Order: sequence, then C-alpha cells, then structure tokens
Amino acid sequence: MKLKVKDIDISSGGPLIAVLNHKDAAMLDLHVMDRIKIKKGSKVETVVVDIAQSKKIVPKGKIGVFEEVIGALKLKNNDNVDIMIARKPLSIDYIKKKLDGRKLTGKEIDQIVWDIVHNKLSAVELTYFVAACYTNVMTTEETIMLTKAMVRHGEVLKLNRYRIIDKHSIGGIPGNRTTMAVVPIIAAAGYCIPKTSSRSITSPAGTADTMEVVANVAFPINKMKKIALKTNGCIVWGGSLNLAPADDKIIAVERPLEIDAESQLLASIMAKKHSVSSTHVLIDIPVGKESKVKNKADALKLKREFEKIGKRLKKHIKVLITDGSQPIGNGIGPALEARDILWLLKRDSRRPVDLERKCLMMCASIFRMVEKKDGYRKAFGILNSGKAYNKMIEIIKAQGGKEISAEDIGIGKYSYDALSTKSGRIAYISNMLVSRIARIAGAPSDKGAGIYIYKHIGDKVKRGEKLFTIYSESKHEFEYAKDVAKSSRVFVIK
Amino acid sequence: MKLKVKDIDISSGGPLIAVLNHKDAAMLDLHVMDRIKIKKGSKVETVVVDIAQSKKIVPKGKIGVFEEVIGALKLKNNDNVDIMIARKPLSIDYIKKKLDGRKLTGKEIDQIVWDIVHNKLSAVELTYFVAACYTNVMTTEETIMLTKAMVRHGEVLKLNRYRIIDKHSIGGIPGNRTTMAVVPIIAAAGYCIPKTSSRSITSPAGTADTMEVVANVAFPINKMKKIALKTNGCIVWGGSLNLAPADDKIIAVERPLEIDAESQLLASIMAKKHSVSSTHVLIDIPVGKESKVKNKADALKLKREFEKIGKRLKKHIKVLITDGSQPIGNGIGPALEARDILWLLKRDSRRPVDLERKCLMMCASIFRMVEKKDGYRKAFGILNSGKAYNKMIEIIKAQGGKEISAEDIGIGKYSYDALSTKSGRIAYISNMLVSRIARIAGAPSDKGAGIYIYKHIGDKVKRGEKLFTIYSESKHEFEYAKDVAKSSRVFVIK
Repeated sequence: MKLKVKDIDISSGGPLIAVLNHKDAAMLDLHVMDRIKIKKGSKVETVVVDIAQSKKIVPKGKIGVFEEVIGALKLKNNDNVDIMIARKPLSIDYIKKKLDGRKLTGKEIDQIVWDIVHNKLSAVELTYFVAACYTNVMTTEETIMLTKAMVRHGEVLKLNRYRIIDKHSIGGIPGNRTTMAVVPIIAAAGYCIPKTSSRSITSPAGTADTMEVVANVAFPINKMKKIALKTNGCIVWGGSLNLAPADDKIIAVERPLEIDAESQLLASIMAKKHSVSSTHVLIDIPVGKESKVKNKADALKLKREFEKIGKRLKKHIKVLITDGSQPIGNGIGPALEARDILWLLKRDSRRPVDLERKCLMMCASIFRMVEKKDGYRKAFGILNSGKAYNKMIEIIKAQGGKEISAEDIGIGKYSYDALSTKSGRIAYISNMLVSRIARIAGAPSDKGAGIYIYKHIGDKVKRGEKLFTIYSESKHEFEYAKDVAKSSRVFVIK
Repeated sequence: MKLKVKDIDISSGGPLIAVLNHKDAAMLDLHVMDRIKIKKGSKVETVVVDIAQSKKIVPKGKIGVFEEVIGALKLKNNDNVDIMIARKPLSIDYIKKKLDGRKLTGKEIDQIVWDIVHNKLSAVELTYFVAACYTNVMTTEETIMLTKAMVRHGEVLKLNRYRIIDKHSIGGIPGNRTTMAVVPIIAAAGYCIPKTSSRSITSPAGTADTMEVVANVAFPINKMKKIALKTNGCIVWGGSLNLAPADDKIIAVERPLEIDAESQLLASIMAKKHSVSSTHVLIDIPVGKESKVKNKADALKLKREFEKIGKRLKKHIKVLITDGSQPIGNGIGPALEARDILWLLKRDSRRPVDLERKCLMMCASIFRMVEKKDGYRKAFGILNSGKAYNKMIEIIKAQGGKEISAEDIGIGKYSYDALSTKSGRIAYISNMLVSRIARIAGAPSDKGAGIYIYKHIGDKVKRGEKLFTIYSESKHEFEYAKDVAKSSRVFVIK
C-alpha cells in the first residue's frame, strides 16, 4: 500500500511508531501495536502501528510518523512511502515464554536485548518483559546472559591494560560522592580506573552532575579512552557513551511502579562494569531504613549474587556492606558536593571526615584486591601527600576544566539556616527529606542549589545551633524548599 | 506553574497525556509517566506526563496536550492553564501488590477498575496489571470482585422482568452466528433476551457486523431498553452502550502478547452478562485445534469456573461444550452470514443445517433452564412455524431496518470458485485460513466480502466440485485473497 507521509511533529521517546487512519488499517487487517515495514527508496524500517479514528489526525491515504521514524528514514512531509505488513519481533515469543515462567536461553535473551536497543519493542511489550522478570525472577545463569547481552549490544571500552579498576555505589544516600576521591587516589597509585557515572534520576546529584561543576563529563568513547590512557583515571557521564544502552530503556518502564527487579539491577550494574572491560570491581551496598537496600539480610543476598556473577564474568569482585543510615559528607547538591571533594583532596580543615573515612576504606579494599595486602595506609599516604589532589587536577584538565579553588565554586545566593529547636544528640536524619528539599531547592539542574549539613548522627547539638543550610539560586524555589523544611522533621534530636 | 496550551493534534487512544518541555519538567521534578493536575477555570484533570527534549515539539512555557485532554478540559490553543504536581493513582500500589503475588481486596480491585475506566492509568501501568493477573492468577473470589467492579463502573440495563435470558459463544469459529437465530426463537417464546454483541476484532465478522446488514445496531442504552421491552429481544452492538467499559481497555493491552488471562476472560464475559441484569445465561465453549479453547480438559476447567462465578452472581448458568473443529454455517462474512440466517429462519432449502442444529440445541438448553423440561421440540416448533422469522422481522424493524429477502442482500461482485483437486471425503477445514481469507477479501468492513463454503467435515466431494467461493467488493483485495487461497490448504481431502 502506498501512503503519503504526515509529520505529526512529536517524539515517542524511543520506539518507532507510525499512525494509520482506521480505514487503511482495516484494509491491511492491522491493529494497534501490530508492526509494518515502511519503505522509502532503499531504506526500510519496521515500526509499531497506532491507529487514528479521526481523519483530522491522520486521513485515509496518509501515514502519521513520529520524530524517531522521520529520523530513521529521513522522511519529509508528503513523501510517498510503501507499507507492508511485518511480523512481530521474535522477542515477543520469548517475553511470553518468560511470562509463562519458563527459563530463557542465551540466544533468546540476546534477541530481546537487541530488540530493546533497536527500539523494536513498544512500551507495553517492554513492560511485559520487566514484569515477567520481576515475577519469575531470573536465575543467576539468566542474569549473566542478560548482562553479557547488554554489553554486546552497546559500545565497549578497551584499554589494553593488565588491570582495569572500577567501583559502584548503590544509590539512595544523599552526598556519598566517593567516586571523586577514590578515582584520583587509585589513579595516583598508578592503576587505571576509567569511571563512568550517572546523572541524577531521583537524587539531588549524580556523580556526573557533581563532576560537571569542575570539568566536562560528556565525551564520545574514543575521547574517553584517550583521557583514561593519559591520566589513568577519568570521571565521565555514562549516558553519552552508549555503554549497555538497553539498561536505560528498561529503567524507564520500571519507574512508574518503582519496581527494582533484582536480576535487572544486577545485570544493569555489572553490564556497565563489564563494558569498560574492568578486571577488579568494588561494589558498595549502603544499608539503611531510607536507603535502596533496607536491611543486612537483603544486602548479604545481593552481595552473594554480585560475587557469583562477578566470578562468572571472570572479574575480581569485592562487595562492601556500608552504613547507609544518613547522608555521607556535608554538601548535598552538585556545587556543595564538589566543594566538599576539593576540601577533602586539599586537606582543608573544612573537609567532611565521614566521607574521607569511607573513601579511604574503599581504596584500601581496592588495593587489597590488586596487591593482596591491606592498603589503608597507602591510600591515606596518597591522599595526605597531595598526590590525589594533583591527580584530580590532572583529570579535571584532561576533561577540559581548569584548577579551581573550593571557594570559587558558586553556591546559591539565597540561603536559609535551619536551627535546632532543642539541645541533645542527633538521633536520626531522613535521607529522603534531605534529598527532597535539596531537589526542591533546585538541585541538580541548578548546580549551586542544595543543602549543607553541619551535624551527623550521634553529634551533640545545642538549642539554636545550625543543623543545615538550604541554598537556592532562585527566589521561588528557595521559598518552597524553606516551607517544606520548616514543616518536616529532617533531623530527629533526642 | 502557568503554561500555555499547545494542541499537538493527536490522540493517545485513551489515557489523558500532556507533554512538558524538559526544562519545565526538571523544575517541577517530574519524570515521564508522573502525574500532574491541569486546571482551566473551574475544571481540573489529572494527566500523565510525557517529556519533550526538543523545543520544536514543546517549548519551555508551553504544555502539549493530546486530543483526550483537549476534550476533557475544553482547551484551545494558547489557553493559559495552571499545573500542579499530582499523586499517582491509588491503584498503582494495588497493581504492585498483585505483581508481588498478594491477593487483592474488593476495594482495591474496584479502585483499579475505576482508574482504568477513567483513563487514569498509562498503557505501561495497565500492562503491569494484566501481567500481574496473568502470572499470579486471580482466585475465583478475585475474579468475581473484578466482574462486579467492571459492572459497577459502567452502565447497567434494568428491564424489570422476572427472567432475563442471555447467551455467549466463545469466539474463534468462522460463521457460528447462533445469536441471530437463538434470539428470535427465545423472544418468540415470550422470554426477554436483550442481547449485546461485539463487532469483529480478529474474525471476518462479529454478530454486530452481521446484524448491521439488516438493521441498525448502535443505540444508546435507553433506546436499547425500549426495543427490548417492546419486542422481548434485540441484537445490538455492545460497544455503543458503555457496559463494563474497563474490559475493552484491558483487551487492548493483551493483544500484543496474545495473552488470554483466564480470570480476565471470565470476568469480561460475565461482566457483560451481569450488566444486562441477566438471570439465565447459556455459555457455548466450542473446542477445536484452531479454536480459542484447544481441548476438552481446558473447556471443562473453564466450564467449572463459569459455573462457580455464575452461582456467586446468583445466575442460573448452563455451559455447553460444543464442536469447534470447523466453520459453522456456510457463509463467512457479514452479508453471507445474514443471508444464511434469513434462509434458516424462512425455512429455505438453502439454509445451513449444521448451524440450525446447533441453534436448536442451544435454545433447548435455555428452555430447560427456565422451564425445567426438554425444549428441543418447542424450539423447533417456533422455528418451523415461522414465528421465529416473524419475531426477527419485528426486531429488525424495531432496530430501524425493514423486511428484506435473503436474495436482496448484496454480495461482493468479484467471485472465485475453489474446486476440489481430487475426490474423497473432507477430513479437515482450517478455521484460521477460512477467517484469514475472508478478512483479506474485505470482511468485515466490506459487508459483501467473505467466503461461502459448500462442504463440511465428513462430506463426500468429487474432483472438480466446488469447495468454496470467495466474494469480494474490490478487485485488489479479491486478487490477494485468491492468491492466498490458491497457495494454502484450506480443505484437507482424504
């Protein structure tokens, strides 16, 4: 069937979708979410069908196409295209199989991941896959195959080094910006640590957002490779690299129900580590009531799974279960966190000691993996001598930034001090409320917005003493964040 | 936040969706599939958020709205609207609960159905519900609550009669147009049978498509009530009535994976029966290799479930397990089926005897339910005396049609006779291929298109004798249908 293109000027956010008038659809016996092939010249793309009941939206004889289809086939308004019925992707049968509780083969998982990466599945179909893996939990075997498939269908960083170090902290803890101290310490010790980090999804800052305060973070993979080979370390945004791209699409359909399918979480993390060809990986699982992992038993279970998968991927893996009961570091929000890190590396007295202790412990674990002996003292030596600071400046410059002092980092001009209403000890800090208020204040899109906290659990506090300060770049958001802070119990004092 | 409306001139097909520019979305901390409230004057609607990365699609300060939102809030381009963050619907938590394998309460199921009916769930969220019910099969208790909730959140037909008869045939068999003979026989016997039927989804004709050849079928519920009270029977399209509307939305997301969750199937059928306040219901389960129900064991299991649910809904229920191994009747396609029915009711020698036998058996079962004695002879008497024909004409006239003879029904002008290539007995007829060819020929949208079959399983056939004729209204579709028929084994002769 020949149809005329109508650019409907909207993006589907991923899947290739075309809209037919209901009369044309009936003629081809097509239903919503069926597939057709669109042919333009020598280019052919398989797309998902949507159906318009009204001719106002798509008249008979026309085909409405979303932005993604325009891009894929280089279409223009009123182009003539050929339409043929297409089969459903093979992976539909495999998704059904998993939904029916059966185990998938490596080939089947590979096909599903390929179809996800190439936008061949509709959101509904992808949701069935996520639901299937959630209710019929993948075996370790399946998770490993999923991990490998995610890596296979994306870019891979190859550095030709004997050892490649990597780390990952499971999210949910405000602050906790360990990467920005661990990377320079490990790189200063002569090890290669090509770190990819994420931007914030639901937190006040991801490591990529914080690093962006002092350097560029978006690089193509060949540029990242050059940086890592030159400085031994880098801290770049994973989103620009197309490493394990299936992952982001899966996460998008997990969000509405806040599903965290364990097999997906494992595969997602391990795929990102595997795609930089890491040989030694440190995983940090913070445990706390308001953390992603709520209790020690869950953490231990996850630890064992990481170890099993790591072993199968032929990686040295070390899993630390850490305290996730409160924010780590003082600054929450990109600029405030970057300032903490510079103070820490420069040995300034204002540095956050809890974050420093955690970073040193993590470096010690990494040294223990690669050198088979305790490395706490070594890590501390590198940090205290200024070598880590110098390495960080080297990395910042390699990533297009320049040396900057902590004082020159811009912090939001509107500020509000939250004072303690009584004397006592800090008994509890709500991770969730700290994150929420920092986000309302403007983090992470306003780099200077966030919260700076002065007290941690166990600290003494006097009535009228400062607990935290909210910083904001715009009046409107500042007022809203202040209101929320005033009406909620961020700190519990006993 | 105040935004200006941009009509993006496309329909979502159900859910209320609005598109924000990514900058505005970041400001409100909103992600794809979050909810916002849109306020225009005194009207407020909660809608699902989509996010545009490019300002070409939706610039900062604007809000792109789908047709459904335009309709719900009576918006115009460049209207100013107020945006507030909204909570997710309550049912999201309940869907998660079901996905986690826990049993839902009546209140929770009710909330889910309410949200489905009112387009409060995105396709992804609805898919999670279907997947949850598919993998964690609903208990009979839950299915009953789902049935009741579907009825509650839709229109209900109340006729104030002591007995209301209804019937349902599970689909998948070409022809099988029993409703159009059963309704006039039962109504002629003085019983009230207000039948709602569906249009075809994947078959060459639904009963509503066939009835439409001789009468109108789309009525509002109050008009349907008038007709049923006047003539005791009607055959109308359920789609125009808003009875159990949640059902259609659930079916739409089942299609991509061809999922038939048993609990949904049961609830869907029983809800439609319950919403016309039926007291006596006959269910026909055709069993066959190419039927929806493939074997007797599955049919028996389904029968027991129907009986359990019928009992709990305080209905007399009778389930017949019938032969679904071949098409029933000779005509396949709206006009050809309507002609069969008129021949049958008029006692014409060309009437399909297999369809007649099945209809009489079904009527007999209905009489047995209401009169506690065998009713085959009674049914045959009503049919043979012409009373059923007269009742049908009465119903046709009440539904805006007029008396028409079978010969005056227009059949497609292009025809092709498929001849037997050998002599023998018919061993097999493919339901799937018969349906497919009839659809390609143009059924159901071209009323006169379809297939007329001359032989059934067990019939003798000579070489060169006609097996079936394809009818089509357009040359193009005719040629395609003919090609498919020539290259596939519709009849197997041994």
